[in-house]
Amino acid sequence: MRISELSRATGVPVPTVKYYLREGLLPPGRPTGRNQADYGDEHARRLRLVRILVEVGGLNIAAVRQIVQALDDAALPMHLLLGTVHYALMAERPAAEPDVQEALADVGRYLDRLGWEVDPAAPARRTFAQALVAVRRLGYPVAPEDFAVYAEHADQIAAWELEHLPDGPRAAVVEMHVIGTVVFGAILSSLRYLAQEHYSAKRFGA
Amino acid sequence: MRISELSRATGVPVPTVKYYLREGLLPPGRPTGRNQADYGDEHARRLRLVRILVEVGGLNIAAVRQIVQALDDAALPMHLLLGTVHYALMAERPAAEPDVQEALADVGRYLDRLGWEVDPAAPARRTFAQALVAVRRLGYPVAPEDFAVYAEHADQIAAWELEHLPDGPRAAVVEMHVIGTVVFGAILSSLRYLAQEHYSAKRFGA
Repeated sequence: MRISELSRATGVPVPTVKYYLREGLLPPGRPTGRNQADYGDEHARRLRLVRILVEVGGLNIAAVRQIVQALDDAALPMHLLLGTVHYALMAERPAAEPDVQEALADVGRYLDRLGWEVDPAAPARRTFAQALVAVRRLGYPVAPEDFAVYAEHADQIAAWELEHLPDGPRAAVVEMHVIGTVVFGAILSSLRYLAQEHYSAKRFGA
Repeated sequence: MRISELSRATGVPVPTVKYYLREGLLPPGRPTGRNQADYGDEHARRLRLVRILVEVGGLNIAAVRQIVQALDDAALPMHLLLGTVHYALMAERPAAEPDVQEALADVGRYLDRLGWEVDPAAPARRTFAQALVAVRRLGYPVAPEDFAVYAEHADQIAAWELEHLPDGPRAAVVEMHVIGTVVFGAILSSLRYLAQEHYSAKRFGA
């Protein structure tokens, strides 16, 4: 199909498609003329994936490129490929102050206790540590253990998610993982807000 | 204390403190001279809260102002005050296309079935609907019911959270609610990522 048809099929405006092509988020089409190219279903699919990363995940172009490059690197082991999605999703944090370092050590000990096998460089460690520090700076001496209820639910959710990640061609598994991480994360958050509103109404409502 | 001391006590640079004062995120201090004012512990506390909203929650100034104004509005019932935090947290979404409207209706029916009492204008409804649409556009015909596992966990998490929200002065309850919503949300997400990495290593690791 032509770029205009690709745009119609995906709902992504032509200038945005061209921008993604220039930025390397979308592989070039098959040239069919001086200024024309032919695009296939795989382009439409990739375009929809990029859209999800940008619109639902709030990722910037550099982060999307990281994921797309990993996806196209056939030699990258699946586990590392899935990790790339996580690492791209977690925003870069400022250099760590001493209390963040301390919190990171607390988080590390807690993960060991949970028996979770997690890369020492996993950015979610730092997100957790930074959140602890924010609360501690308000004067509440929280420890990772205080969030054991969250850890239990997160454990059950992730176990269920990885169990239901389908087998299949690499691209399909990764697509499901991206959706599962980015979109399902948004769904879980929204359900938490909705449930909070429900229980807040019960406790404080008229 | 002086503004320089307030800055030292909270780690917020003086120009940022002045900016927050101009933007009305921080109430003015008690004037002690032509260009001087005295700030108290309540300023330090508010400053740390604003910091959390901006840095952990990623909120813009307008959204922080909404929360701060609600917090200072002594006539606002607690349930609405807590709702303000949610509404400020959820980014504005573009106008709804027909498939988003359809998904919103699906979400509404699902919430009814769950028995959750949620305002029809709650922005989390739309976040959920938009996420469904993103997945549907990729060709997966998902329904809210497919996320029943998330809903169950979200229900238990929110019930636990509201149960553990302390009684006490209004400002303290709201502060805990802001922390609980913004910071604990970040902790839950990071724990989900960490658990996913763990289970991914088990399934795909060497």
